[in-house]
Amino acid sequence: MGRVTERRKVIRIRDGALSTRPDTLVAEEPLEIRLNGKPLAITMRTPGDDFALAAGFLVSEGVLGEADELQNIVYCAGATDGGTSRSSGAESGGRSNTYNVVDVRTAPGVVIPDITLERNVYTTSSCGLCGKASLDAVRTTARWTIDDTEGDTTPPVRLEPELLASLPDRLRAAQRVFDRTGGLHAAALFTEEGELVDIREDVGRHNAVDKLVGRALQNGTLPLSRAVLLVSGRASFELAQKAVMAGIPVLAAVSAPSSLAVDLAAETGLTLVGFLRGVSMNVYAGEHRLALRAAAGQG
Amino acid sequence: MGRVTERRKVIRIRDGALSTRPDTLVAEEPLEIRLNGKPLAITMRTPGDDFALAAGFLVSEGVLGEADELQNIVYCAGATDGGTSRSSGAESGGRSNTYNVVDVRTAPGVVIPDITLERNVYTTSSCGLCGKASLDAVRTTARWTIDDTEGDTTPPVRLEPELLASLPDRLRAAQRVFDRTGGLHAAALFTEEGELVDIREDVGRHNAVDKLVGRALQNGTLPLSRAVLLVSGRASFELAQKAVMAGIPVLAAVSAPSSLAVDLAAETGLTLVGFLRGVSMNVYAGEHRLALRAAAGQG
Repeated sequence: MGRVTERRKVIRIRDGALSTRPDTLVAEEPLEIRLNGKPLAITMRTPGDDFALAAGFLVSEGVLGEADELQNIVYCAGATDGGTSRSSGAESGGRSNTYNVVDVRTAPGVVIPDITLERNVYTTSSCGLCGKASLDAVRTTARWTIDDTEGDTTPPVRLEPELLASLPDRLRAAQRVFDRTGGLHAAALFTEEGELVDIREDVGRHNAVDKLVGRALQNGTLPLSRAVLLVSGRASFELAQKAVMAGIPVLAAVSAPSSLAVDLAAETGLTLVGFLRGVSMNVYAGEHRLALRAAAGQG
Repeated sequence: MGRVTERRKVIRIRDGALSTRPDTLVAEEPLEIRLNGKPLAITMRTPGDDFALAAGFLVSEGVLGEADELQNIVYCAGATDGGTSRSSGAESGGRSNTYNVVDVRTAPGVVIPDITLERNVYTTSSCGLCGKASLDAVRTTARWTIDDTEGDTTPPVRLEPELLASLPDRLRAAQRVFDRTGGLHAAALFTEEGELVDIREDVGRHNAVDKLVGRALQNGTLPLSRAVLLVSGRASFELAQKAVMAGIPVLAAVSAPSSLAVDLAAETGLTLVGFLRGVSMNVYAGEHRLALRAAAGQG
């Protein structure tokens, strides 16, 4: 459990010179998530924080929103003989993993939305989202709208661009594995003062965000109505949706957003920043949360 | 159909200076893939090459292997009222897309493997693969093993490292959209002489590969037993599996592979090269297809 990296033999070629050595790779393993004993989803993830991943996935799907709706999460040790474990061959060193099935049990009385189960029937390896249907699902299943004013008792989140610009360096400084493998995506939560709250890494960017959100659920800090979510790569619709489902008001990405991510942000009130690099950034939606003093001209 | 990019208003911040201008974003839209009228999968993709994407997806799933097994592919115009279309709101300019559902009809007599439909029931946005079960699925549904010798009548593919090293530059030169949006993954097929055969781009890297493979199916060139597949990002298990399902002997990635991708390559005979950058690269499996003259020492 929790093998974030694995070692494999590699032949390195550098300027024509060959060397054979062990290399550190990001670990990728399947995780089957069951909901009250019923198989719901399988995700390829980097082992570790599996319970948080499962909890966060169920927040994203609209099943969980409060810590007390979660009864417990357990590994299904006996389940791994049923075809979901990976008994590695000689090439991978003969290891086996008995931690690839988790069961999330909801507290008595928690109503499971039908949409979750139904959507997964038609979902593939690539993505579990389906456009208009998904946009509707966000609206209908979200426990809370993005609300960083809490009924006018607190001022909305307002960030200096310089503060936002400092976050990617803090993310990279906090990343423990990326430099060794080059294969991990990172996601981090910051306070509106720019303090790092939590950081998770995974071979799948959506998993890294689910791990963050699941931790927040377990800690009873949902909705994350004052948080800034920073992701190390691109901002797809799926990541924007996960931010919205967790009540996060600001999503910043080091790389590009997609058109549908921008549309969702505009519709839900999410602040979406892309290409956050040094003192440069693009603001695609929700610019009222940025302290932009200069008048915007036509560039 | 085929909107690879979309325009959105963006506030740019560069060294403290603000400007408001239209920005070019990679388009992301859902595509529902139906098989003989039955919904099978939904993927978030960049519009364009939708028929190839659907065909390639079905090659990856083991449903299709030969061009004559495919009867036809059609857009389901009437289906878009059923909840799968996206009728954009004011923020996205009021466009609607009637090209987000395709139906793939197989020729009479084609047997649809059960595994495909069953697997998708438990699949999520993140990934449709499930470890041991998936490794088994590759073995059982693959139409061909990776065989670049064709019964000893032709020599195996053998590549000079210098030739491999030249491919990423050729990929970038051929990319039409990446420089404008920064949001697209690319995948390209090369001959063993390093000639570019085809290149596809998509917001999802798996879609880019499916589009390549689907084109090959439509052109009758499967299995791609002499081809080199280059991807612009990382090599996950899913991409390695797609290469194997198309009979491709060499997968090269600009960035890191995962542990499970390396395991699959070792088990199936796929040559897997990662961190292909300039004259440097790492060879993780299938090194017999590389012309490595120098003796490998312990680095």
